[in-house]
Amino acid sequence: MNGAELLIGTAARNGVDVCFANPGTTEMPLVQAMDAMPEMRPVLGLFEGVCTGAADGFGRMAGRPAMVLLHLGPGLANGISNLHNARRARTPVFTVVGEHSTWHRPYDPPLAMNIEALAGTFSGWCRTTARAAEIPRDTADALAATLRGQISTLILPYDLQMEDAGEERSAGQPFRYDPIDVGAVGKAARMLKNAKSPVIVLGGRALHREGLMKAARVRAGCGCDLLAEAFPARMERGAGLPDVPRIPYLPEMAVDALSRYDLLVFADAKMPVSFFGYRNVPGLLATPGSEALTLAGENQDVLEALEILARELGAPSAPPEEYLARPSSFDLPTGPLNGEKICTVLAALQPEGAIVVEEAITNSLLYHPLTAGSLPFTLLTLTGGSLGQGSPCAVGAAIACPQRQVISYQADGAALYTLQALWTQAREGLNVITLICSNRSYDILKLELSRLGVFTPGPAAQRLTDLGTVDWVRVGEGMGVASVSVSTAEELAEELSRSLKEKGPRLIEMVL
Amino acid sequence: MNGAELLIGTAARNGVDVCFANPGTTEMPLVQAMDAMPEMRPVLGLFEGVCTGAADGFGRMAGRPAMVLLHLGPGLANGISNLHNARRARTPVFTVVGEHSTWHRPYDPPLAMNIEALAGTFSGWCRTTARAAEIPRDTADALAATLRGQISTLILPYDLQMEDAGEERSAGQPFRYDPIDVGAVGKAARMLKNAKSPVIVLGGRALHREGLMKAARVRAGCGCDLLAEAFPARMERGAGLPDVPRIPYLPEMAVDALSRYDLLVFADAKMPVSFFGYRNVPGLLATPGSEALTLAGENQDVLEALEILARELGAPSAPPEEYLARPSSFDLPTGPLNGEKICTVLAALQPEGAIVVEEAITNSLLYHPLTAGSLPFTLLTLTGGSLGQGSPCAVGAAIACPQRQVISYQADGAALYTLQALWTQAREGLNVITLICSNRSYDILKLELSRLGVFTPGPAAQRLTDLGTVDWVRVGEGMGVASVSVSTAEELAEELSRSLKEKGPRLIEMVL
Repeated sequence: MNGAELLIGTAARNGVDVCFANPGTTEMPLVQAMDAMPEMRPVLGLFEGVCTGAADGFGRMAGRPAMVLLHLGPGLANGISNLHNARRARTPVFTVVGEHSTWHRPYDPPLAMNIEALAGTFSGWCRTTARAAEIPRDTADALAATLRGQISTLILPYDLQMEDAGEERSAGQPFRYDPIDVGAVGKAARMLKNAKSPVIVLGGRALHREGLMKAARVRAGCGCDLLAEAFPARMERGAGLPDVPRIPYLPEMAVDALSRYDLLVFADAKMPVSFFGYRNVPGLLATPGSEALTLAGENQDVLEALEILARELGAPSAPPEEYLARPSSFDLPTGPLNGEKICTVLAALQPEGAIVVEEAITNSLLYHPLTAGSLPFTLLTLTGGSLGQGSPCAVGAAIACPQRQVISYQADGAALYTLQALWTQAREGLNVITLICSNRSYDILKLELSRLGVFTPGPAAQRLTDLGTVDWVRVGEGMGVASVSVSTAEELAEELSRSLKEKGPRLIEMVL
Repeated sequence: MNGAELLIGTAARNGVDVCFANPGTTEMPLVQAMDAMPEMRPVLGLFEGVCTGAADGFGRMAGRPAMVLLHLGPGLANGISNLHNARRARTPVFTVVGEHSTWHRPYDPPLAMNIEALAGTFSGWCRTTARAAEIPRDTADALAATLRGQISTLILPYDLQMEDAGEERSAGQPFRYDPIDVGAVGKAARMLKNAKSPVIVLGGRALHREGLMKAARVRAGCGCDLLAEAFPARMERGAGLPDVPRIPYLPEMAVDALSRYDLLVFADAKMPVSFFGYRNVPGLLATPGSEALTLAGENQDVLEALEILARELGAPSAPPEEYLARPSSFDLPTGPLNGEKICTVLAALQPEGAIVVEEAITNSLLYHPLTAGSLPFTLLTLTGGSLGQGSPCAVGAAIACPQRQVISYQADGAALYTLQALWTQAREGLNVITLICSNRSYDILKLELSRLGVFTPGPAAQRLTDLGTVDWVRVGEGMGVASVSVSTAEELAEELSRSLKEKGPRLIEMVL
């Protein structure tokens, strides 16, 4: 078998069955190899950021890597910002980039770039295959590395893809977590008991159902509070689950939220820091002098750590009923739309098992509190802050979970970075409802300007924050997605209800 | 003045009067500084690749840098592929990227990336400002570096933008070319006289009007042929100008075209290499054993070198009439569209002084030969091979030359990478007519597959090369550009003629 066939075969036999791709000439042998491997589903993105964001969404929901296939340095560059978001989410992603033929690269042909330098900015593992015989080993190593919640980038010269490359290999040792430090967990238990006002900050897998349930038991065992990191990669939420607030985005609010705690215990989460370093606002958000302790780090099994902690604290075997959110009853709002009304309609109508990808920025501030008692759902957020993540992420989530309803709750400015994702939603017939907050403005930047004392933007600031008119119905339909526009809460509820009964993608422009 | 004001002020006083921007929080002081500097025109792109491609188009036409303002590492990453194209075009571009506050960066906040690693892949000059007092010097150094046909990237921490930063500086020494090696030019003259079949390969400024005229005189002096590099950054063309063919894209055709020469002299051009390294096709396209000589390199004035060469050869002071293209008369084609008919209609109708940005890939093969006798125009091509360059480049060209008609001749697949450029064309009211070849396919990849012996793509290859339906009229109108669809040559001629009489952007979808 040639190198391309071995790569695709090794990936498929190790459980990689989706390839989000925007290939070019130097990837054609890999495309040809996919033709002979029906286990591998190829999904085309018309722009590389769609492919990488989709791989992020897929990995978050499936818990295993998708393959991403991109063309040389420029193709990879187009995909970097969503790989950055995936890195911050610790999503496993297997990135494969074609490179010029080994003998051709020294001529510096037009498309040549330093691919390794680009890949180094987001990859936990990166290698350029040097000889065809090394392709099976490199593929196996790359796949093994993804299982640690990393992005692996394998750079594969065109000529080597076509050479005979020996035999497939397995992906080697299955991933094993580093052992839990039982002593540290015991210490955490003692400190939690002794602290006046302790909190456990939950991140990563601690925000999945099992983690939340264990954390609620710990809460019952010691009376601590629970908080979620500000931007969870994946969080289970809704009635019957512990209602865990998120650390606020705005640093002043986060400082306030954390000021009541004298002990912070981190469960698969990092010390909270401000999104940006503002004048007169601290970068580290915890109160100076509060104690901090890490219960489980990136390579440890946070579920095991929480279980041990619960036992050490003599916690009950199930969370008390009062710690679990009760179903909310919602009064549907009426009249012209605003962020709160949109969040309320969504919280009220989103179906059980929905996957909500939230990149609505200024219009989603109330979404989290409002959904505590919604039907149980999964929330995916913008982990790395790079806009244009939501629509592609929805593509990947829908492919990972075809039976579930995906709702892509989008700011218009953010959605415009990667609007080609709508085309893939149409091509693949995905169950994605895209809700666009059309406020025709980068409102978040107006907020940032006000921090500088600018409350009435000048002509340049106005020009650079005002989006003017984008007709989302035409854009959506141009990309093949049935689209409507609404401007009142009643219309939104009606159109959302109607869309939820249909299969395939829909877009609802919400004019604010 | 604070650092941001000094940067904007220094740039403006050194002739930078356009800023293509997609800023975020860490660039707000620079936006605020632009509010107080009406000489600087801010142009918003909804996606960073639009900003960088526009700066490329602007720089090619204006001969001086535009500023590009991008947000942290992820924003820069989104702009890299068109900066790669600009680097290959040797376009001056002044890139400014905000960075986290110096004291905040060590906390590794969500948006933090290795910006210098990203910038190093395309920048001739790159620096992260370390102290506010260094902003004037760093800005001046960055601007000076652009004049060598480089991309300069200045990375500016947020806190330093707001600090007092001293005084403005001039951009230092004006740019001077390295001296011409008169001996080498004399040697070139002797070799050109003695060679059996010599050719001068023209690139860079040798393809501007003055360079072409001098090259035609040289031709008259020694009987050599003239060829243009395969993908010129900017080439003047049409009736009254020397008709210089381009080295073909397909390596077999290029090898054939170069096989008749025993001497290649490079005037601001590089040794031609194959775009990709294929099996059984040489990477270096010149015939083995042919002689090669560089007349003027990247930092030398090719116009001076050509002038000296013409004198050494005793060439006439003006090119002979027979070397200049005569006006063509075109028979307008009829019936269903194909690439040849589109090129013919365009060659016939494009007005004098048009700027044609050509990224039509498989449908533009005949455009160059057909336009030898068109009304004089300027051609901008895809220098770095990274698709999605044309529509943004048209934005920048139109802003640099508001009195000229810009025609953006686009492949649908290529246009989809950066379709947000249409929005900027609408927002700025630019005189850009976008012609979209809608063949609903990455046809170039089908060609590449046939090189691998695949003449009937399998299911994966089909899925990854077929674009299905994109309704360009809806997409264009959704972005604010008046749009129509045509499917015959008569309709195209009619709609193109109509659009040429209007101001502002237009889109014509050409269904193939």
